[in-house]
Amino acid sequence: MEKIFASIITIGDELLIGQVVDTNSAWMAQELNKAGIWMKHRTAVGDVWDEIWNALDGESKRAHIILITGGLGPTADDITKPLLCEYFGSKMIVDEGALANVKIIFERILKRPMIERNLKQAEVPYGCTVIQNKRGTAPGMWFEKNGKIFVSMPGVPHEMKGMMTDYVIPALQKHFTLPFIMHKTLLLAGIGESFLAEHIQEFEESLPAHVKLAYLPNYGMVRLRLTGNGDNKNELENELQNKFETLKQLVAEWMVIDDDLTMQQAVGKLLKQKSKTVGTAESCTGGYIAHLLTSEAGASAYYKGSVVSYAYETKEDVLHVSKETLATVGAVSEETVQQMAKGALALLNTDYIVATSGIMGPDGGTTEKPVGTVWVAVGNKEKIIAEKFFFRFNRQRNIELTATNALNMLRKFIIEN
Amino acid sequence: MEKIFASIITIGDELLIGQVVDTNSAWMAQELNKAGIWMKHRTAVGDVWDEIWNALDGESKRAHIILITGGLGPTADDITKPLLCEYFGSKMIVDEGALANVKIIFERILKRPMIERNLKQAEVPYGCTVIQNKRGTAPGMWFEKNGKIFVSMPGVPHEMKGMMTDYVIPALQKHFTLPFIMHKTLLLAGIGESFLAEHIQEFEESLPAHVKLAYLPNYGMVRLRLTGNGDNKNELENELQNKFETLKQLVAEWMVIDDDLTMQQAVGKLLKQKSKTVGTAESCTGGYIAHLLTSEAGASAYYKGSVVSYAYETKEDVLHVSKETLATVGAVSEETVQQMAKGALALLNTDYIVATSGIMGPDGGTTEKPVGTVWVAVGNKEKIIAEKFFFRFNRQRNIELTATNALNMLRKFIIEN
Repeated sequence: MEKIFASIITIGDELLIGQVVDTNSAWMAQELNKAGIWMKHRTAVGDVWDEIWNALDGESKRAHIILITGGLGPTADDITKPLLCEYFGSKMIVDEGALANVKIIFERILKRPMIERNLKQAEVPYGCTVIQNKRGTAPGMWFEKNGKIFVSMPGVPHEMKGMMTDYVIPALQKHFTLPFIMHKTLLLAGIGESFLAEHIQEFEESLPAHVKLAYLPNYGMVRLRLTGNGDNKNELENELQNKFETLKQLVAEWMVIDDDLTMQQAVGKLLKQKSKTVGTAESCTGGYIAHLLTSEAGASAYYKGSVVSYAYETKEDVLHVSKETLATVGAVSEETVQQMAKGALALLNTDYIVATSGIMGPDGGTTEKPVGTVWVAVGNKEKIIAEKFFFRFNRQRNIELTATNALNMLRKFIIEN
Repeated sequence: MEKIFASIITIGDELLIGQVVDTNSAWMAQELNKAGIWMKHRTAVGDVWDEIWNALDGESKRAHIILITGGLGPTADDITKPLLCEYFGSKMIVDEGALANVKIIFERILKRPMIERNLKQAEVPYGCTVIQNKRGTAPGMWFEKNGKIFVSMPGVPHEMKGMMTDYVIPALQKHFTLPFIMHKTLLLAGIGESFLAEHIQEFEESLPAHVKLAYLPNYGMVRLRLTGNGDNKNELENELQNKFETLKQLVAEWMVIDDDLTMQQAVGKLLKQKSKTVGTAESCTGGYIAHLLTSEAGASAYYKGSVVSYAYETKEDVLHVSKETLATVGAVSEETVQQMAKGALALLNTDYIVATSGIMGPDGGTTEKPVGTVWVAVGNKEKIIAEKFFFRFNRQRNIELTATNALNMLRKFIIEN
């Protein structure tokens, strides 16, 4: 079976000069990958005619499929569509479907009059297949030239994602004969990337060429992903499952979950299975753990609430941390997180609790308690345990690392208690 | 003055196939831009010899500076360094400085024995300038070939950022004669991108060629950025300030702040100026507003805490929302957010309060209150006002949009009260 390759071209000064982080490409690459299409290359160009033209030429030599995002919005530099028109030797026409869509969006959703700029969005090069945009005004366009597929989509993430899911991926699956690609992912915490690599080196070296292992480190965690590809779905599934079981045994000590889930999803799943609830008492993480837990749909089944006790006063008044404790050992101490946990358990009336207090930086550090010093407590009505961490990074990383480690402590506590 | 162009090459399957979102490139592009260097192109390639080689060749034809990230970690596929060695016709040697650095990191920070894999990180091609990595084990490398600068750095964001700030940017400023580039940014809320473009079309068209206007829309806000470049710093500063004042008058109605700050930074600045404090009572935003406010260093000066009252019970027990209100008009109602705000004001004892309650989706919507229905209250001890919003998006967007709009309501309330 011939391998089918795709390239992505992102158009727009805002991406090139870094005003916007390109999150689209990663999402698109993953969707292509799941469908059995291999990523070849990715190019970011500004709103410059020659650069865009050369990118189209260059990528069409490399790949079977060229996905293009950006350059189509109402305030875009109006280069992309005329360029595509010329590139495919066509002329611009108004697409009736796209025009009706622009009108509906303004009449029913935005409830404001259309302007000339919006009407122009319904124009497309004659001969392309128009991909309706159910979430915005700019239509997508599908072109074929010399056996290559070119798809142009808007850069607005939810508009692009809608088009990819509803139309582009199914159409590519129809157009090409694609292999099966399967992934098996597990999440580890508490082991560094290089030690892990050393630990599973033999396993990794024993993998056949059509099975790859990827390391994805992220804030105190490492995700390990096995990816296999083949023409026979059942065979591949069996083979990959076997390798996965071996891998799981090798890393059992650090395993959070044997699934492609985040730490907060793993915790949520565990709480749901046990029909238990959790609450949080956050000082240094400032609501971030609550945010992670409530980012998941259905969190209300197990998450009841949080007290973000950022000020000393809030720790005292709301969570009943003793004034004496704060005055003698301070807010970043075992005693304080213990009392925060106890106070929050009583107030929120949950089965489990997690509490954090630390110095996130850049200011507030002392010789005794430098920036990155963190105390975390987890527990239930019978028992509260606390642990001290030291992260030596910047504020954002310290918040992330505290949240990850606190959730992992909670996870272990739930399993054991 | 000749324009100096840079290209970025990111190396690694994990970026290409979308396992990791490339946030490095945007940051690097912004730093280059601030230094007066123009972005030309960005390329992402996998861990494939020919692809990397071709990218080096291709970008060196386009740009004066080629910045390369990735492919240097202890579990990287070991392609990048040998390839650079061959590309620059060199041979591999051990760099004593880099070796000492690896040893120090293991002895003093990681406190665990080194392994072979880590020692190899101290090898570099002979003749390159080694850039010490103060934050990790992989050194950076600076090469010059045919008048072009090539810099290879690790892909770990804080390691790369450290090298860029400490070494690469200053060295590029020394190596090239660069123009002055200045930005003036303002943040708007409550106006759509296309209407804004229509509103300031005349202003935009009147700008000289060396001054550009960029639109950066993001979750209910639009950032407008004027960028000018020139050889005379004072002249440019005066000219840009003039244009900026004109622009500010044109968009005064929607202006949040005339500075490159986020909404939460603008709110924080305002609170600091007034020496006032704020607290939050969050249901649907689940701690996200608290997280945004506490992401800023120094937030403890104005932020006291939050009650995340995700469950009905928490709303009743902690914030004293009446059982009757919840039973009759429900949690997503004007009455509930009013009572949440009142309860939290009393509990947290702050000058201002913001409260949110809504249906974020994907489940939980009804005909009367579809997904995206949100009530927000802001106030102080004298007065609490509430407003209903309707966002029609997905969970993540609804959380973001609620937070943005709630903080903007708070901002306006603080100014007026």
